[in-house]
Amino acid sequence: MEKFEVTILGCGSALPTLRHFPTSQIINIREKLFMIDCGEGTQLQIRKNKFKFTKINHIFISHLHGDHMFGLIGLISTMNLLGRTSTLHIYAPKDLESLLRPHLDYFCNGIMYNIEIHSVNTKESLLIYEDRSVEIYTIPLKHRIQCCGFIFKEKPTLPHIKSDMIDYYNIPRCQINNIKAGMDYITPDGEVVESAVLTTPPPPVRSYAYCSDTIFLPQNAELLQNVDLLYHEATFCKEDEHLCKSTFHSTAEQAATMAKLSNAKKLIVGHFSSRYENENILLEEAKNVFSNTVLANEKMTITI
Amino acid sequence: MEKFEVTILGCGSALPTLRHFPTSQIINIREKLFMIDCGEGTQLQIRKNKFKFTKINHIFISHLHGDHMFGLIGLISTMNLLGRTSTLHIYAPKDLESLLRPHLDYFCNGIMYNIEIHSVNTKESLLIYEDRSVEIYTIPLKHRIQCCGFIFKEKPTLPHIKSDMIDYYNIPRCQINNIKAGMDYITPDGEVVESAVLTTPPPPVRSYAYCSDTIFLPQNAELLQNVDLLYHEATFCKEDEHLCKSTFHSTAEQAATMAKLSNAKKLIVGHFSSRYENENILLEEAKNVFSNTVLANEKMTITI
Repeated sequence: MEKFEVTILGCGSALPTLRHFPTSQIINIREKLFMIDCGEGTQLQIRKNKFKFTKINHIFISHLHGDHMFGLIGLISTMNLLGRTSTLHIYAPKDLESLLRPHLDYFCNGIMYNIEIHSVNTKESLLIYEDRSVEIYTIPLKHRIQCCGFIFKEKPTLPHIKSDMIDYYNIPRCQINNIKAGMDYITPDGEVVESAVLTTPPPPVRSYAYCSDTIFLPQNAELLQNVDLLYHEATFCKEDEHLCKSTFHSTAEQAATMAKLSNAKKLIVGHFSSRYENENILLEEAKNVFSNTVLANEKMTITI
Repeated sequence: MEKFEVTILGCGSALPTLRHFPTSQIINIREKLFMIDCGEGTQLQIRKNKFKFTKINHIFISHLHGDHMFGLIGLISTMNLLGRTSTLHIYAPKDLESLLRPHLDYFCNGIMYNIEIHSVNTKESLLIYEDRSVEIYTIPLKHRIQCCGFIFKEKPTLPHIKSDMIDYYNIPRCQINNIKAGMDYITPDGEVVESAVLTTPPPPVRSYAYCSDTIFLPQNAELLQNVDLLYHEATFCKEDEHLCKSTFHSTAEQAATMAKLSNAKKLIVGHFSSRYENENILLEEAKNVFSNTVLANEKMTITI
């Protein structure tokens, strides 16, 4: 199966702790790396995880709070020092451009590559990126400032050829792509061999949804329906639920409820408040609602 | 002796490595903490070293390259989240104000404390900070952009009273401060007892000099004369000396020559280029010129 992996570079919240880095993730889809959020220290985490800076061409910023983007200027600067020439695309709520440009002009004077900042509408779910492997849509979220999540939907691959059947019918190579694309094969004797007989179906398409800082939004369940892996913030435990309203965050239980309502296969919870030295309370509360839950941590890579 | 300690939070240069954080230091003078430079990840290093954020009231930025100040906005933001109310003073070359203010307005909206940014003239050595324990002067340096170092000079303390002599002459307590301040004591019989007889001299004043990114500047030796501890950048080894001219950096040998010319007691070298996996080459080259040299590292606290 083609690679589709999520690596957690950071899953803490705003206050620094020795347990976590602030938020950042790398999504590896068929060896293309997509970054989500870029808290302070992300470039160090990239080094630790041995990701290649040059393979990161698209960065998605959920919202303009420091713990999700203070690492951006350092990363951009490092990419320049490393001799990058290809364009870097950053997708973020609209203010990023005006905030970042003066710093780019000052700190990355003579920068050798182009930075294209794409302003993202956080109010509705829109397709913001597409290539031959994946489509990326925004997920509208509700936080203290404009904020959205991202859903990565793999595009279907072609069916696999059954090579023994190809040999059996003695089918010329030039027909393979047609058969993969769904055309039947007609033998020199006029026999019609159905494409389905010559192929095995491709693996089902997979998806990953990232729900950054947000209050509980059950109305997103439809958008997230049947997602393979859901990352959802779980800043607070149930006892501190009263804090969700003023801070626009979720509890672990609410994250798990989102996974349940979305019929997700697996849930990762993260964005842990510094107040919980032991995050097992969050895990337990989530598991009570949705058993296939794991706690994010900075050494974690999950294969979808 | 009163506390005078230098703790290295980071001593790498611009490219991130797993060996070092970018530049930052904490100078602890009688439990007041002064920060020099603030590269990305400094707030994490503060946590690791168990320094209290509230004790840092003065930050000195040598120059506006990212590896010396990308950690500033995160640190300021964290101090706000921690409920800081006292003014934070930042001393830096003049552009910091115009670069930082828009980010403070955006990311630290409703900030509860005042930030006073003091524009520093990097061209000559000037007194930029003074309290009853210390004077801090700039050191003019020469880098690709405006840059200065800082010299911390302890103020003399008063002599210590010899309590046995006080008892011998039966001197009333109210005279102690006068005697410490240098006044002789006259007994009821008219005998003059010299202040020097009643006291032992205070410990000699100590000093610490920080020479950030710079080409070799022997003309600074006079300014640094007899410094107790000198930190000097040593970005390159001798073989790579040709890179110093274009990048405005120094070799380890040049750092050691500065220590020798300045008659320093001890030298720490840092700001290591990511190209040297083994920094012992830098140490050896420095020690050939100035034997009392150590390599900076992130676990290091040096008592002066």
